[in-house]
Amino acid sequence: MELQFSLLFFVEAIGTIAFASSGAMVAIKRQLDLLGVIVLGVTTAVGGGMLRDIIIGNVPPNLFKDPVYVLLAFITVMILFVIVRRNQKILASRSIEMYEKVMNIFDAVGLGAFTVVGIDTAVLAGYGRYHFLIIFLGVITGVGGGLLRDIMAGETPYILKKHVYACASITGAVLYAYLQDYMNNDAAMLIGAGAVILIRILATRYCWNLPTATKK
Amino acid sequence: MELQFSLLFFVEAIGTIAFASSGAMVAIKRQLDLLGVIVLGVTTAVGGGMLRDIIIGNVPPNLFKDPVYVLLAFITVMILFVIVRRNQKILASRSIEMYEKVMNIFDAVGLGAFTVVGIDTAVLAGYGRYHFLIIFLGVITGVGGGLLRDIMAGETPYILKKHVYACASITGAVLYAYLQDYMNNDAAMLIGAGAVILIRILATRYCWNLPTATKK
Amino acid sequence: MELQFSLLFFVEAIGTIAFASSGAMVAIKRQLDLLGVIVLGVTTAVGGGMLRDIIIGNVPPNLFKDPVYVLLAFITVMILFVIVRRNQKILASRSIEMYEKVMNIFDAVGLGAFTVVGIDTAVLAGYGRYHFLIIFLGVITGVGGGLLRDIMAGETPYILKKHVYACASITGAVLYAYLQDYMNNDAAMLIGAGAVILIRILATRYCWNLPTATKK
Repeated sequence: MELQFSLLFFVEAIGTIAFASSGAMVAIKRQLDLLGVIVLGVTTAVGGGMLRDIIIGNVPPNLFKDPVYVLLAFITVMILFVIVRRNQKILASRSIEMYEKVMNIFDAVGLGAFTVVGIDTAVLAGYGRYHFLIIFLGVITGVGGGLLRDIMAGETPYILKKHVYACASITGAVLYAYLQDYMNNDAAMLIGAGAVILIRILATRYCWNLPTATKK
Repeated sequence: MELQFSLLFFVEAIGTIAFASSGAMVAIKRQLDLLGVIVLGVTTAVGGGMLRDIIIGNVPPNLFKDPVYVLLAFITVMILFVIVRRNQKILASRSIEMYEKVMNIFDAVGLGAFTVVGIDTAVLAGYGRYHFLIIFLGVITGVGGGLLRDIMAGETPYILKKHVYACASITGAVLYAYLQDYMNNDAAMLIGAGAVILIRILATRYCWNLPTATKK
Repeated sequence: MELQFSLLFFVEAIGTIAFASSGAMVAIKRQLDLLGVIVLGVTTAVGGGMLRDIIIGNVPPNLFKDPVYVLLAFITVMILFVIVRRNQKILASRSIEMYEKVMNIFDAVGLGAFTVVGIDTAVLAGYGRYHFLIIFLGVITGVGGGLLRDIMAGETPYILKKHVYACASITGAVLYAYLQDYMNNDAAMLIGAGAVILIRILATRYCWNLPTATKK
């Protein structure tokens, strides 16, 4: 339990950093001011958990009572803001490619961690028997922050068009929701989160895409 | 009671199909991928009821505990997706006109059914004496799904500009909210839902529009 | 108590009028119809308080149980609509400048009032010891309506880019949240609200802006 908790905190922290960075970069590219960058960054990082808590009536949402991830997201955003401001050319440089590769992996880890944490929260709140609900809550915890980021930035949500983003979260959520009836909870959680991470990394590497109804 | 329940289920099912279709078509036209089409379709169908449940603290919202309409919306979306994908030219063909006429009527039926169901849910939850609240909840149940659809698709919400869409819902909601004090509940419900459907069909037929402040 | 209550009602009323006007003007400029103008105007005026109530589980939100501010916002919007419709040239006339100056001051008063009212509501609901939460709730009460307005109108939220708008609210919220431990509540409230109003008026007058990461 102690071990699982620390590992979870660690992967959630990685996810928070990755999600906050993605929100901050969207805001920077749209030339929002410092506050806009902070709001988009923090919302992306903790917005999914907030939506989950509101949907299950866990109010005020956890992030407000124990704002450790808010603080971590805030620090991440401030560091990014200062780096970009001090070195304007960095956005067009080659180091940005490297940065994006690392962030993609971090983002996959975060998506996996947030998805299983969302399910765990729902099960602990007593909704374990509603499989559809806990799967939905896992997915919304994973992708909800990015959804809010894109709605606030006025863009078509990434998760509705990006190669297998929400799909990875759904797959992991279904795995975890059903496997926990048959095996040790920690093992099921690792498999669920692992599936999300693996699918996302493979999808980015091989450009997997879901079909569209009409040809582009 | 038994009879009313079955009739309600039937008209709600029609509304679910119409709303899911409208969400799916918006997603298909914006070339979202399969998951985007599913998310927009299902959100349009059940999003209004979800907003209503969150506003009155009926959490987790009903759709998660008994996802029969989610399933129906999902099936509707999948069928539409397959049809459009197999026959790309259908979106430009004459059969699409016929389809849109039928869907407009289905949509009107759904708007009427969802509006009165929203009020009923609020009254059953004990808010019958707050007339403004129950009218609002009826309307948000009716138009909330479309609102979420348009916000997620990055469009100005249809209900803010389309000929008397939300207005029809408001009229029916006011009728039902006040008539139920004076007559049999079933009769009031039928009058409320009927008014919504009638206004919508007439508005589409005769292009009724609300005034704008400036000339277009 | 009696006195504070009346003063609060008065400044909240001023804020409601200013916020409703700003929502209505956005809708009029986008040529939405009468209902669109009403919805955007009323949402801007009462949306912040609604978000706050949902986040702390105070459901149904207060505005539905006691819709006095909804009514005030509605009347404001209707008057504006009629004035613009009767005199189309008014939007390009010099009197609009005067109107905007007055509205900017009203808006500052509203932002100050809503911010401290939001904190008060949260403290009364028993969350006084969560400083981050009550500051957030104060700010969301102040800026949430404008956020919903811009999301519904499909624009990048004003608060993410406008010279020190949310920042003014945050400053006042922090002041009120911390000062109320050290002094009379009414005095702390006046200082908090006063700080918001002062910062907003100075920021508009001298075009204060937060930095952006990249040069425009």
